[in-house]
Amino acid sequence: MAEKIILDSDPGHDDAVAILLAVGSPEIDLLGVTTVGGNQSLDKVTYNARAVLEEAGATSIPVHAGCDRPILRPMENAASIHGQTGLDGVDLPKPTRPLDEGHAVNWLIDTIMSNDPKTITLVPTGPLTNIAMAVRMEPRIVDRVKRVVLMGGAVHDGNWSPCAEFNVKIDPEAAKIVFNEPWDVTMVGLDVTHKALCTPEVQKRIENTGGELGVFVSHLMDFFRKSYQDNQDFVDPPVHDPCTVAYIIDPQVLTTRRCTVDVQCGEGPALGMTVADLRGPEDPTCHTQVGLGLDFDRFWDLIADAIQNIADGKGQH
Amino acid sequence: MAEKIILDSDPGHDDAVAILLAVGSPEIDLLGVTTVGGNQSLDKVTYNARAVLEEAGATSIPVHAGCDRPILRPMENAASIHGQTGLDGVDLPKPTRPLDEGHAVNWLIDTIMSNDPKTITLVPTGPLTNIAMAVRMEPRIVDRVKRVVLMGGAVHDGNWSPCAEFNVKIDPEAAKIVFNEPWDVTMVGLDVTHKALCTPEVQKRIENTGGELGVFVSHLMDFFRKSYQDNQDFVDPPVHDPCTVAYIIDPQVLTTRRCTVDVQCGEGPALGMTVADLRGPEDPTCHTQVGLGLDFDRFWDLIADAIQNIADGKGQH
Amino acid sequence: MAEKIILDSDPGHDDAVAILLAVGSPEIDLLGVTTVGGNQSLDKVTYNARAVLEEAGATSIPVHAGCDRPILRPMENAASIHGQTGLDGVDLPKPTRPLDEGHAVNWLIDTIMSNDPKTITLVPTGPLTNIAMAVRMEPRIVDRVKRVVLMGGAVHDGNWSPCAEFNVKIDPEAAKIVFNEPWDVTMVGLDVTHKALCTPEVQKRIENTGGELGVFVSHLMDFFRKSYQDNQDFVDPPVHDPCTVAYIIDPQVLTTRRCTVDVQCGEGPALGMTVADLRGPEDPTCHTQVGLGLDFDRFWDLIADAIQNIADGKGQH
Amino acid sequence: MAEKIILDSDPGHDDAVAILLAVGSPEIDLLGVTTVGGNQSLDKVTYNARAVLEEAGATSIPVHAGCDRPILRPMENAASIHGQTGLDGVDLPKPTRPLDEGHAVNWLIDTIMSNDPKTITLVPTGPLTNIAMAVRMEPRIVDRVKRVVLMGGAVHDGNWSPCAEFNVKIDPEAAKIVFNEPWDVTMVGLDVTHKALCTPEVQKRIENTGGELGVFVSHLMDFFRKSYQDNQDFVDPPVHDPCTVAYIIDPQVLTTRRCTVDVQCGEGPALGMTVADLRGPEDPTCHTQVGLGLDFDRFWDLIADAIQNIADGKGQH
Repeated sequence: MAEKIILDSDPGHDDAVAILLAVGSPEIDLLGVTTVGGNQSLDKVTYNARAVLEEAGATSIPVHAGCDRPILRPMENAASIHGQTGLDGVDLPKPTRPLDEGHAVNWLIDTIMSNDPKTITLVPTGPLTNIAMAVRMEPRIVDRVKRVVLMGGAVHDGNWSPCAEFNVKIDPEAAKIVFNEPWDVTMVGLDVTHKALCTPEVQKRIENTGGELGVFVSHLMDFFRKSYQDNQDFVDPPVHDPCTVAYIIDPQVLTTRRCTVDVQCGEGPALGMTVADLRGPEDPTCHTQVGLGLDFDRFWDLIADAIQNIADGKGQH
Repeated sequence: MAEKIILDSDPGHDDAVAILLAVGSPEIDLLGVTTVGGNQSLDKVTYNARAVLEEAGATSIPVHAGCDRPILRPMENAASIHGQTGLDGVDLPKPTRPLDEGHAVNWLIDTIMSNDPKTITLVPTGPLTNIAMAVRMEPRIVDRVKRVVLMGGAVHDGNWSPCAEFNVKIDPEAAKIVFNEPWDVTMVGLDVTHKALCTPEVQKRIENTGGELGVFVSHLMDFFRKSYQDNQDFVDPPVHDPCTVAYIIDPQVLTTRRCTVDVQCGEGPALGMTVADLRGPEDPTCHTQVGLGLDFDRFWDLIADAIQNIADGKGQH
Repeated sequence: MAEKIILDSDPGHDDAVAILLAVGSPEIDLLGVTTVGGNQSLDKVTYNARAVLEEAGATSIPVHAGCDRPILRPMENAASIHGQTGLDGVDLPKPTRPLDEGHAVNWLIDTIMSNDPKTITLVPTGPLTNIAMAVRMEPRIVDRVKRVVLMGGAVHDGNWSPCAEFNVKIDPEAAKIVFNEPWDVTMVGLDVTHKALCTPEVQKRIENTGGELGVFVSHLMDFFRKSYQDNQDFVDPPVHDPCTVAYIIDPQVLTTRRCTVDVQCGEGPALGMTVADLRGPEDPTCHTQVGLGLDFDRFWDLIADAIQNIADGKGQH
Repeated sequence: MAEKIILDSDPGHDDAVAILLAVGSPEIDLLGVTTVGGNQSLDKVTYNARAVLEEAGATSIPVHAGCDRPILRPMENAASIHGQTGLDGVDLPKPTRPLDEGHAVNWLIDTIMSNDPKTITLVPTGPLTNIAMAVRMEPRIVDRVKRVVLMGGAVHDGNWSPCAEFNVKIDPEAAKIVFNEPWDVTMVGLDVTHKALCTPEVQKRIENTGGELGVFVSHLMDFFRKSYQDNQDFVDPPVHDPCTVAYIIDPQVLTTRRCTVDVQCGEGPALGMTVADLRGPEDPTCHTQVGLGLDFDRFWDLIADAIQNIADGKGQH
C-alpha cells in the first residue's frame, strides 16, 4: 500500500523535484502540500507549490499555506540560490486549483488526527516552523504520526554557515522542538544531499525523460547549477529535498544510523548546527536517525521513473 | 461603550479575581476566556476558568483551551502558590457549560479577525504562549487588536528568580515575541502588582461584599495569603492579575511610563527578565509601556463594585 | 590603624576623586594604584593615575599598569563621558615618578601574598579584568585579602544599557569571576552612586576647599557635569568611584544588604547585569553585599576633608 | 637549526609521549614545559611533567606550573582516561630537579619577549588557559611568537561531547581567545589524532625500541588502551599530543588546510566545538589552519627514533 505523506515545503528548485517524485511514485500517497516561508516568502513558495502540482497535473492535491516566518528569529530567505521567484529559470503554469483554505498548521493537525494512527509520514523539506507549531498546538500528533522524514541539518557539513544547514539555521528553535519530541525522526541532511548531485549525465537523462516535464526539470537544474556554482562553490547542484521521498519509497537509497540529535540554539558560530552523537555503538532504540550515505543510481532512477510516470498520466491527479 | 476584551489566563487565585472583575464591570465586555498551561496544568486551569464563570453566573462566556506548555522550555507550574488544583481553598461549582470546541489560538485569531479593527483588547494574565502562537499563525492580528494589557514581568523585581516574574520566566521566548511585535503593549508587572496587596482590611471588606461571592473570594484569599507567607516571604498576598482589567476600566488605577521592553532569553541569572529602559526622557511614541504605580484604593473599589454587581445580577451572564 | 587598600582603577574623573579621597584620608593607607583599560585606553588611564597622584603630592605611591582590554570581549571605552584623554577639562601636572615596572596583576598578587593575611582591601573602580586575572593566576589571594569593595553594577539601574553598568558591562566575565569567588565583596553600584551627585552647592564647597586642589576638582566636575548632561540625561554628575573609599573610611556612608550577586554573561538585553537577590530576609552569612543607600552629607564631608588634608600637606606623600 | 618550542601541557599519557618526542628529536629545542590543570589536577600533571623529563634524563629543562582551572568554568579532569595520578600504569622516577619558580604564564611571557622575534613555537597540548592568560597579560606576545601548534578541537568529531574535544570543551573561552588572536595557529585536532592509533604492531615496535624507555612507553600504552576501550569505544588508543611535535619536526606528517576557526562558547549541545569553515576554496592567507590527515608511518617513525635517541643518550639533557 502506498505510504501517506504530507510534504511541508518551500519550493524551491529541489522542493519542486520532491513534489514531482511524490506525485509520480506509486509507493507514495501525497495527501497534501503545506508551505512555509523559507527559500522565498510564503506567498511565493505557496504559488510555486500550486504551480508545480499544476505542471504535474495533480490538481486534486490540496495546498495549505502556513507560517511566514521563523518562530523567534527574523525571516531570512535563500534568494541567492532560488532567485527572486523562488523558482527562477522556468515558466510556471498558472494554477487552476485555488489555494485551499485553512492554515497549514491546522490542516496538518486535522489530517493527522482524523487519519488512523501511525499512518501518516511528515516530510518537511523547509524550515520546521509549521511542524513545531503543530506540535505545540496539538501535542497528540507526536504519537499519531508514523514518522518524520525531514530534509535539514548536517552532521559534518554546512551551507548557511560552516556547520549549519539553511532549513535548521533559519529556525533553529523549531528544529530543536522537532528533534526533541519522541517521534521517529529521520534527518536527511547535507551528509546525504550533497551527494545527490545533478551531474551533466544525470541532467541529460532527465531532460530526455517524460517529454516536456523532463525539459521543465532540466531548466530548473540549469538555474540551480548556476546558483550553486556562483554561491556555494559547487560544480553540480545538490538536489536535497527529494532524498526524503526517495528514502520513503526505498529505504535502501540511504544508509542511516540511529543516534541522538540536538540543535544548537545558543548564540555563537555553531548556531543552528544539528549535533548528532556518532560516538560509540549504534543504539537501535534511539528515536532519531541520520542519513549518512546515498545510493546515487537508485536515487536518480526513482526520479526518472516518477517523471516518466507523470508524463504517462500515471501520477497522482 | 464597554471595551471588548479576551482574557487569556491560567486560573489561579488572582486570575479568578480578574475574571470576576471583568464579568462584574459594566465598562468591560468579556468576549471569552482562553486558557494556557501555567499556574497549573492546562486541564486544571481550564476547569477552573469554567468554574469561576459558573460561580459568577456568566455561562454565556465561552472558554477555549490553548497550549499546555511553553514554546521551547519544559512545563513548570506554580503549585507552590496555587495548590494542587490551581484554585485550592474553595469549593468550585461544577460548570454547566461544556468546554467550547476549537483551540484557543484559533479562537483568538478568528475572533480578532472577525471583529472590527482596533476593537479588541487582549488581556493575558498567564504565560504568553497562546498569544505568541497566535501572532505566528496569523501575523495580521498584530495590526487588528486594539492593544495588549498583560500581567507579567517586572522592571525592578522578581518572584520566580531574583529578577524575573513567573509568567515571563517560564516562557520567555513567547514573551519576547509579544513585546517585540509593534502593537500597543502595557506591561502590568510586579512593580504594580506587588502593591495590590489584599490586606486584612481589604479582605474583610470583600468578605462583606456581595454575600456568598464575597465569601468565595475571601476564601481564595485565605489560601493565597498562606501561600505567599510560606513561599514568598509576604505578609499579605499580591493580587496580580486583576490589575490589568482595572487599568482598562480606569487608566488612573496605574501610573505608567512609555519605554522599550525586551526579554532576556539567553542563559544566565537574568533569564526571563523584562528589560525596560527607564533612562532618559519618556518617548511617548514607544509602542510599549510599563506600569509603575497603583492607586490602591481605586483598585480595590473596582473589585468590590464588581463583586457587588455580580451578586446583584448585574454582571455579564 | 589605617586600612591598607589597593585602588584598581581607570581614571576617569570620578576615579581621580577616589584617588584624592584615599590619599587625603588618614583612615586609608594607599599601597598603590593599579590601572586597567576602561574609561579610556590603558596608556591614558595609567598616565592619568600618575598625574593625579602628582597633583596630590603623593609620589611615593606606585602605579602599575595592568590589562589593556577585557578578558573575552573587545575593548570599549567611555570617551563620551571622560573625553579623549580620559580626564578632559583639567591641565594635568607631568608625573615625576616613572611608571613602576611589573604588571599590575603580578604586583597585586605579590603585594597580597607578602602582606599579612586579611590586611589588604581591594578597591576596583574600573572593569574587573585585573582582579579576575589575578584570581586565576594565584587562587590563594581569595583567602588572603581582607575584602573587595568595588564600584560597579547596579541592582535597579543601568548606564551602559537599560540594566547594566559600564564597568561590569564591558567585562562581564571578569565580574562574574569576582562575584563568584568566596571572598567578602561589597558592590557599590549605581543604586548608591547615582545618589552621589555633585550638586552646584557641593561643587561650590569643593571649589572653595584646599585652594588650587579644590579648583582642580571643580574643573573636573565642570567637564563631568557637561558629559552627564549631554549623554546620560543627568542634571548633576554622579561621582561614582569615591563611594567605595568613603565606605571603607566610614561604613555609615552606605546602607548595605547582604545577598547573592551573579552576573548575566549569556547574550541578550540583560548582558552585564548584576543580578542581586533581594527577595526574602537578609542572609547575614552571604559573602556578597550590595550598597543601596548613601549618606550624602557624610560622603561629601569626607571628600572635602580629604582635599583640605592634601592641601595642608597632611595627605600621603 | 632546531626549532625552539615550549610545551604547555597536562601529562597525561599522550602528553608524556609528546615530551619524549620533543626531548629525543634533534629538530626540536625544548625550552621548557609549562603545566596547566586538565587531564588531572595541576599538582599532579606538574609532577608528571617533571617525572617524565627525569625518565628522559632531561633535567636541564625547566618546568613551570600555571593555571589550575579554566578561566570561567569549573575544573573538570579526564581521570576516566588517565587515572587517578594522570599517568596511571607506570612507576615514575622521582624528579631530582626541583619545580622551577615563577608562574607558567609569566615564564611564557618572559621567555617569548626575551628571545628573538618569531623564533619560538608554542605547543599547547592541554586546555588553553595558560596561553590565553598570557595573551591578555602581555598582548605583544602575539606578534612575537613564531606560531602556535596546538592539540585540541576537531572539525568533524568529538570525544568530550558529540562535537567537542576535551581540551577545548573544558576551557572554551580560552580556546576562543587563542584562535581569534592574529597569530599563526595550527589546530591538530581529533581529525588527525584519532588516526594516530597505537596499534598492537606499533606498540610492539615501541616496546622493543630503546630498552627500558620503550618498555616505559609501552606500559603507558597498556593503560591508555584499556581506558579508551572502556570509556571511548576504541580498540587502539589515539596518541593525540605528539602529533603536534611531529608536525613541527616534519610538516609532511600532516595534511592541513587553511581556514577560519572559531569556538562555540554560548550554551547548547555544541558548546566547545571548534567551528572550522571548510566551504569554498582554501584561503592561503588565513592565519589559522587545521590538520586533517596523518602520515601514520612517518609519525610512528619519529616517535621510535626519539625513544632510541634518548636511550642512546642523544636526547636533550
